Amino acid sequence: MQTLHVELGAHSYPVHVGAGILEDLGRLACEAGLQPARAALVTDTNVAKLYAERAQASLRKAGFDPIVVTIAAGEASKSMAMLATLYDRMTDAELDRSSAVFALGGGVVGDLAGYAAATYLRGIAIVQIPTTVVAQVDSALGGKTGINHRRGKNLIGAFHQPRLVAADVATLATLPEREFREGLAEVIKYGAIRDAGLIADLGDQVDNIIRNRDAVALEAIVMRSLQHKAVIVEADERETGLRKTLNFGHTVGHALEASAGYGTYLHGEAVAIGMVAAMRLSQAHAGFSGADAARLTALIARAGLPTAMPAGWRGEEFIRALRLDKKRAGAGVEFILLDRIGHTVTRTLTIDAILAHL
Amino acid sequence: MQTLHVELGAHSYPVHVGAGILEDLGRLACEAGLQPARAALVTDTNVAKLYAERAQASLRKAGFDPIVVTIAAGEASKSMAMLATLYDRMTDAELDRSSAVFALGGGVVGDLAGYAAATYLRGIAIVQIPTTVVAQVDSALGGKTGINHRRGKNLIGAFHQPRLVAADVATLATLPEREFREGLAEVIKYGAIRDAGLIADLGDQVDNIIRNRDAVALEAIVMRSLQHKAVIVEADERETGLRKTLNFGHTVGHALEASAGYGTYLHGEAVAIGMVAAMRLSQAHAGFSGADAARLTALIARAGLPTAMPAGWRGEEFIRALRLDKKRAGAGVEFILLDRIGHTVTRTLTIDAILAHL
Repeated sequence: MQTLHVELGAHSYPVHVGAGILEDLGRLACEAGLQPARAALVTDTNVAKLYAERAQASLRKAGFDPIVVTIAAGEASKSMAMLATLYDRMTDAELDRSSAVFALGGGVVGDLAGYAAATYLRGIAIVQIPTTVVAQVDSALGGKTGINHRRGKNLIGAFHQPRLVAADVATLATLPEREFREGLAEVIKYGAIRDAGLIADLGDQVDNIIRNRDAVALEAIVMRSLQHKAVIVEADERETGLRKTLNFGHTVGHALEASAGYGTYLHGEAVAIGMVAAMRLSQAHAGFSGADAARLTALIARAGLPTAMPAGWRGEEFIRALRLDKKRAGAGVEFILLDRIGHTVTRTLTIDAILAHL
Repeated sequence: MQTLHVELGAHSYPVHVGAGILEDLGRLACEAGLQPARAALVTDTNVAKLYAERAQASLRKAGFDPIVVTIAAGEASKSMAMLATLYDRMTDAELDRSSAVFALGGGVVGDLAGYAAATYLRGIAIVQIPTTVVAQVDSALGGKTGINHRRGKNLIGAFHQPRLVAADVATLATLPEREFREGLAEVIKYGAIRDAGLIADLGDQVDNIIRNRDAVALEAIVMRSLQHKAVIVEADERETGLRKTLNFGHTVGHALEASAGYGTYLHGEAVAIGMVAAMRLSQAHAGFSGADAARLTALIARAGLPTAMPAGWRGEEFIRALRLDKKRAGAGVEFILLDRIGHTVTRTLTIDAILAHL
């Protein structure tokens, strides 16, 4: 197990990465300062049958008394309706201010459960136990929580830092192939925006990582990704500057997800396409070289991720979603672009300038 | 117009109190640092016909472009359903991160609109323009926002400080008699917990205030109340200590509201009964004198407020609501009690100990 500490003053917390640490969840929660009390373990229908019992047993052993709330797997659960169900279960169990919510699953579980914890009694503790690559390298750390609105992803949300993140890389062994690969999009993203060495390493190892899911190799890339995420979150908890660089590939990615209907693409797949799109804009507006664009695009393709905009993407829904994007600033849309691998620049582009190059 | 500044570091904001300042809303918003942009003016069916046009005109004059969202008057609007409607209107209008929400109305409008602003795009600016006594002296300042759940009041919520509070005491002239009187419960509360002189003054003036609603007298009691509230909020933004004293009368008050069905009592009426109940517990557990209890109870009655628990209050619903109260700590319920007029103590009481003295 490796540990890093996210330093955010009163909102600081430990992040543990390792194989098999789910067994130690209860103990790790106590060490992070949580009081054993009534709690909610939120998970989804896929993860529940694999890991809920183990998590529950570990929590019970440490003195927690968790109800288990199992939501339907999939992005559609990030809804007002599912949120209302979660509130109902939490009030039925009479969770109070000393209670914690444990989010066991991928980004959907983490975002929904995190948002419920952020807003129940104006905020109770949340522990993130990510079980997908995307959640382990990205969404579990940083405190972004939220649900979707028909008009856009994560339009409703709150910042609510976890009290603890426990990423058990052994849980990645059971992840379906497609979900495993989508997570690599976020790893590639860290390399693209901050770490040319990581891109070089992935160039050597990506085929091996996909084939074997070796725990040691996974622990290494998860920890390296989280170190980048932690630095950015620490520097900029509320996403006003440096943190925006994490949105590389996400502006177009979100608009694709919204316009194609939630569920058509996995998040990482939409981000993969969004990164390729952002590279095209980078060539036009930030002097990014064609050779680097080709190299990164090839890596994305080797990870089994899509690189091309879908047929018929240029619709009203896509443009509307792009305009409603949270990175919108006045008349233009703020884009994170690359001027070289490992380094970003920010440009505000008009809708027309965006559409001209995608 | 009088102004006080709530000092909360990066979340500081001005509070203006005066007659006719609704006309200056747009200018005051600009002075508070808001950028004229698309905005939402949220109000209710009662307030809309009296003041919405004036507020909208003032905002337009300053360059804001507000949509007007009018919700049904009454506590029932603090619901998930109404919140969803508000989100829909906000996304339809494509409000973005530079947008502000203006809450024109009483506590229901302020809490609902404030919560929508707290959670839309993970938080946009909220301006509170309270038009009831309760909202002017209490709820508009301090950043508590939220909606109700069938299991209890304000169970879903967030802390979200306003960027500006503008309390126009001229709007109190049109307040129905019952709503006007309920607001005095909160003024009496400030006196009870912090300001024996205010209780003495109210003893002299309460009949006159109720009869004439004189703008000068109102400006004085609103500002004096807000000064108390500001000191408490500044000392304790997140309600862990001093701020809890503001819950005097609210623990039983909230449980009454929940168990009698929302809408049976106005908030201030429930708090009035709750204060009398808390005085009884204060006599039993904090050495509060019978003479002071009689004097404060008489003042509450002269303000036209109820003082007696309703017939049949001792039901399962009441006890359940009391147990779910946010002030609940472990096995007991934390109560704010008085040991003398103007001074509080905190006691953790069991449900049985509470029921024995109400």
